Amino acid sequence: MIGTSITTDIAIIGTGPAGLFAAFECSMLKMKSILIDTLDTVGGQCSALYPEKPIYDIPAHPSITAQSLIDSLEKQIEPFDIPRLLSNKVVEMEGQKGNFTLKTDKNNIIHAKGIIIAIGAGSFGPNRPPLENIEAYEQAKTVHYYIRKSDSFIDKNIVIAGGGDSAVDWALTLKDKAKSITLIHRRDRFRASPESLARLETAISEKKINKLVPYQLHKLHGKQGVLESVDIISLDKQIRSLPADHLLAFFGLTTDLGPLQSWDIDIIQGRIPVTPSTCETSLEGTFAIGDIAFYPGKLKLILQGFSEASMAAYALYNIVNPETPLHFEHSTTHGIPVKP
Amino acid sequence: MIGTSITTDIAIIGTGPAGLFAAFECSMLKMKSILIDTLDTVGGQCSALYPEKPIYDIPAHPSITAQSLIDSLEKQIEPFDIPRLLSNKVVEMEGQKGNFTLKTDKNNIIHAKGIIIAIGAGSFGPNRPPLENIEAYEQAKTVHYYIRKSDSFIDKNIVIAGGGDSAVDWALTLKDKAKSITLIHRRDRFRASPESLARLETAISEKKINKLVPYQLHKLHGKQGVLESVDIISLDKQIRSLPADHLLAFFGLTTDLGPLQSWDIDIIQGRIPVTPSTCETSLEGTFAIGDIAFYPGKLKLILQGFSEASMAAYALYNIVNPETPLHFEHSTTHGIPVKP
Repeated sequence: MIGTSITTDIAIIGTGPAGLFAAFECSMLKMKSILIDTLDTVGGQCSALYPEKPIYDIPAHPSITAQSLIDSLEKQIEPFDIPRLLSNKVVEMEGQKGNFTLKTDKNNIIHAKGIIIAIGAGSFGPNRPPLENIEAYEQAKTVHYYIRKSDSFIDKNIVIAGGGDSAVDWALTLKDKAKSITLIHRRDRFRASPESLARLETAISEKKINKLVPYQLHKLHGKQGVLESVDIISLDKQIRSLPADHLLAFFGLTTDLGPLQSWDIDIIQGRIPVTPSTCETSLEGTFAIGDIAFYPGKLKLILQGFSEASMAAYALYNIVNPETPLHFEHSTTHGIPVKP
Repeated sequence: MIGTSITTDIAIIGTGPAGLFAAFECSMLKMKSILIDTLDTVGGQCSALYPEKPIYDIPAHPSITAQSLIDSLEKQIEPFDIPRLLSNKVVEMEGQKGNFTLKTDKNNIIHAKGIIIAIGAGSFGPNRPPLENIEAYEQAKTVHYYIRKSDSFIDKNIVIAGGGDSAVDWALTLKDKAKSITLIHRRDRFRASPESLARLETAISEKKINKLVPYQLHKLHGKQGVLESVDIISLDKQIRSLPADHLLAFFGLTTDLGPLQSWDIDIIQGRIPVTPSTCETSLEGTFAIGDIAFYPGKLKLILQGFSEASMAAYALYNIVNPETPLHFEHSTTHGIPVKP
């Protein structure tokens, strides 16, 4: 495939909530941008990993599912007709402030004056438990590492393994749909928000969730990928068998920053240090926002990604328009986004 | 009136968008809070000055009026039953991190472990033009400094005076409702967002807005407060008369930080310097968020107020719960706000 060459003001790498809102803020400041993502849809982890999961801490959205959040952000940028380069991985970057060149694995070339990196944790995949013949169950969709639709779990026996937020939150989300939910973890304590832990305690006391700790996954039983039961094993090697139609294993993601690591941008412990209040990286003209960005006190909230998107866009305005100082007052002074 | 004594974790002063969302974030972290405001309703300037004005840069809200934004934020905190002390001005503050005492002008006493100051620009009032007999027109509601409902301008002749965002944005908002709109300003250039300025140019070329510059307000004509025409005057003293049912004068607000200035918190040029990423002020245990807060690169966006609210709440968690470290992962790990 012969790639195309695109010239724009801002190249935005990553199309999770932070990247999408960065495109909005760039457009409001009359800067052209392009959205680039390795996946074939926008939305990042929100769309790919937990589209149905409700989010409660987006301001002025008392509750919104991850996919609805993405849909609303897409609607917000719709008037600007922002071009998208999906299923494209940026593999090379060169140049400097005001004049960068990016190249993707599909041989597309992007010329941009500034870059916003909004790649979350990088490209992602699940940590899979080392169980015999697990591939057959994965293929038959009885073993899951993330969930797009929860309908397939109605009236099923579910075993959920893991000690973090995903395990706890999915146990809570499915507790009124499933026939049974058993939550197992190799430690005594779960790591989740105080709110979720309080709800978990309530659900356990109401017998809506069966908690078994400390246990690990031991063996899957079934035929041709159809799961029938899951054996779990305690520290002193006691084995229990749990009837199971589905196993949900939440052992975190392995993530990969990919070619970014070879660029001229500082990366510390898998994250990009930025200047707070501009989000500029160590390489002038490149900005990092959302979960990939790091500064002292950084919170990995979607809200912070939004806020960082606006900071980066305003800082980039001066790079894209070095001759024209920006008038800036406050939120409500912005006009309606009209089609260019 | 004999006041009451209230003990809580966090006293939040100011109930604009930043203050309301701070109450939400405190609640999500299981901290008690109280909302205090000098006005008799929550919402700050959004509710008091421009409730009908659409806002375009709240993430995942392609367009929302200022009052709807406040309504949504109120809905978001509703499950927590956060107490409110409205029509109360905080007049005294003393104490230190973990143990503050506030006193209001209604003799209410609040004991709190931490304080969030979210007072925007302080208490506010309009700058009034020095025109003869203007009080009669103000009283008859034909001269306005801010607008709560735009319905009264349908099919009316409107003169709008001022060169900033309010003048430009109200001209744009009313252009399809009013019979005529004349926008006057004592300089040639308007100060507004690039987006609004572009829309203004379009509206002028479509003859929906009549722009007259440089002109100043000179005299009001009418009977018993009913406005009939407005005289405007140029730099070389040429006078023009404009038929007018209403005059909208947007010359900014005078604001007053009030007793805050006597507290032990640094204030520089009317704003409170804070540490970025925690929003702590010069006085440990007190935090400032939203428009009143200042750090290098600070943007006066409502979004930044939200983001700062979450930073302050997370920083306060350690003050309220010195013994219990906070588990923190990311947005979606928060549980449903259930009634305590």
